[in-house]
Amino acid sequence: MISVDEARGQVLAGLQVTGRETVPLANACGRVLAVPVTARLAQPPADVSAMDGYAVRAADAVQGARLSVIGEAPAGHPFAGSIGPGQAVRLFTGSFVPPGADTVLLQEDATEADGTVTVNESCVAAKHIRRAGQDFTAGAELIAAGRRLTARDVGLAAAGNHPWLQVYRRPRIAILATGDEISLPGEAIGPGGIVSSNAHMLAAFVTAAGGEPMVLPIAGDDLAAISAGADAARGADLLVTTGGASVGVYDLVQPGLQARGLALDFWKIAMRPGKPLMFGRLESLPLLGLPGNPVSAYVCAVLFLGPAIARMSGQPGGAPETERARLTVAMKANEHREDYVRATLERGEHGWLATPFSVQDSGMLSTLARADALIRRPPHQEALAEGAEVEILRL
Amino acid sequence: MISVDEARGQVLAGLQVTGRETVPLANACGRVLAVPVTARLAQPPADVSAMDGYAVRAADAVQGARLSVIGEAPAGHPFAGSIGPGQAVRLFTGSFVPPGADTVLLQEDATEADGTVTVNESCVAAKHIRRAGQDFTAGAELIAAGRRLTARDVGLAAAGNHPWLQVYRRPRIAILATGDEISLPGEAIGPGGIVSSNAHMLAAFVTAAGGEPMVLPIAGDDLAAISAGADAARGADLLVTTGGASVGVYDLVQPGLQARGLALDFWKIAMRPGKPLMFGRLESLPLLGLPGNPVSAYVCAVLFLGPAIARMSGQPGGAPETERARLTVAMKANEHREDYVRATLERGEHGWLATPFSVQDSGMLSTLARADALIRRPPHQEALAEGAEVEILRL
Repeated sequence: MISVDEARGQVLAGLQVTGRETVPLANACGRVLAVPVTARLAQPPADVSAMDGYAVRAADAVQGARLSVIGEAPAGHPFAGSIGPGQAVRLFTGSFVPPGADTVLLQEDATEADGTVTVNESCVAAKHIRRAGQDFTAGAELIAAGRRLTARDVGLAAAGNHPWLQVYRRPRIAILATGDEISLPGEAIGPGGIVSSNAHMLAAFVTAAGGEPMVLPIAGDDLAAISAGADAARGADLLVTTGGASVGVYDLVQPGLQARGLALDFWKIAMRPGKPLMFGRLESLPLLGLPGNPVSAYVCAVLFLGPAIARMSGQPGGAPETERARLTVAMKANEHREDYVRATLERGEHGWLATPFSVQDSGMLSTLARADALIRRPPHQEALAEGAEVEILRL
Repeated sequence: MISVDEARGQVLAGLQVTGRETVPLANACGRVLAVPVTARLAQPPADVSAMDGYAVRAADAVQGARLSVIGEAPAGHPFAGSIGPGQAVRLFTGSFVPPGADTVLLQEDATEADGTVTVNESCVAAKHIRRAGQDFTAGAELIAAGRRLTARDVGLAAAGNHPWLQVYRRPRIAILATGDEISLPGEAIGPGGIVSSNAHMLAAFVTAAGGEPMVLPIAGDDLAAISAGADAARGADLLVTTGGASVGVYDLVQPGLQARGLALDFWKIAMRPGKPLMFGRLESLPLLGLPGNPVSAYVCAVLFLGPAIARMSGQPGGAPETERARLTVAMKANEHREDYVRATLERGEHGWLATPFSVQDSGMLSTLARADALIRRPPHQEALAEGAEVEILRL
């Protein structure tokens, strides 16, 4: 058996980053930037007023002085001339400060009447002015390649005058659920049958992780159907299978794909739930074989598929981020497998409090859906008392 | 001036939940459920094996016993008969346990040859069986209305045999950026002009929050353009404006919308950044007027627009979730306004460490984009020492 980290490292090493594509800025949120965004202009483009008021010379603007208002400069309409001694120009937030002025007299510190403004509060030089380039200068790198773009990044790229961005193509993930027993929701269910939950759960997971899912038709437990699934996955960046990944006589994914030239690593991973995992390659198409059990499939998706999608999208794709929590109940010692325990979370005085579900059966999708987190327990972790600190993956 | 909480309460009270729509299960992730999902069948549908092995009677399966293998039951193909004394049926994970058997002999504890299985390890009754309905029974509520559906919920709804779900329609949010000075990225920029960053930043925010953005053409600083913007917003569930929301002579949003029957609450909110906020109604269309400054607009979106979209989507939509962090540097006392300080986060030994940016100018979109969190400082909060605990909103 190999460890979770070791298995993830091998999966990530076997993947390639997708190609680049150009997308409109308006569709770029959530995508991974492939080429850095540099500013095409300075922001602000000139010294601008941070407040409503008057552009003045600080030397003139002493309490009681009366200055001649020679014009106004609403945002988008700069004043054409420059300011001389004893003069002022009416400004608003965002107005360009005209040449000759060196400070802004606040509107609340002034009284204007008949083309003259009276200074009620003496000014200090260089106040209430945002300097040209204070936010960024032309040519400055605004966003580094490899970043998954937020709404704020979209705003920043817009401010830097980019209508288009180059991002990595979303990895296309083909999903092949296998098994004679499974039907799609709403379809006829055979005797001994159940409804397929993995394919659409994984498809939603893929979308949320930034990939593009392709749900392939369910393959029954026969070699030809599984081989046909492999054919249908052509054009994908990764084929994910669920079920049939063990070594029993009805576990046909391995032999079915071998008929299409599968080169395979098969691992028993020292983890619970989700022991068996396949990773390999059908010619140039990487393959990740997840367990058929929905809880195991989902936990393996969190631990392996999410990082794989990140890696193919142009990000490092390491272990999922963990946080710390305190247990509300004691837990027994762990055995030799890394354990991912479904738990609910609540806020305590000093951070998260985690309560594991009392029944951890990996057949219970209802428990998984209600879980807020997985508690990660390293192999051989000793028994934990109520209040002990644990590592959690928030779901 | 009113408080952030008071303003948010008034905004939320002025909104309605959108109608329901039916969506395919495959498109339901991220949507808010309008009608509870109840199980249409039990899961598992019958007692099933949790392991590969043999269905046996515990009374027979003592060490050294030899049982007759009368058949097999791969998943999806239940055994037609029942098990009598001295008999066994080959099972696999997920196989229905045939009538007559009361436990599962693990394959690793057995040796099969010539139609006979030898028990190498005595069995205990009722082991390795998942009971019918262990995950859920038919008719059980699987997912409550009002929940934003996760990938796991999609799996659970599938397992409960639902190909379609009823969700609340995504709120349509019309976004109207105003100002003579702004151009779209890539378009000609006038003298004194800047590139519009708010509209597409807010559109990306709306999408991420579960709404459907409509970016309206930019309205210049004239009354007719702003009134036309109000007309273009017809059919939306909420109109969001940015800029022009102050009370200066060029702040025309208020008068421009009044020409279309605006009933308005205008507030100065005791917060920084983002003091002025409008909330009102154009006949049946609610209006949220955000500041024009991109940092203020974004912070107001986090505090007011996100909760508004949640409320319209069928969720409560209260204050954004906060966490705790410790300061890596001291901070001065706060004044009378609630302050939202842009900060970076890193992991410390015992939770988040927050470092505020040294320059907090609300004109700096680059700082906002690099921030990991906003530190929330209540009005009049005293000076904080390095290491003091603060409340953060992660971005």
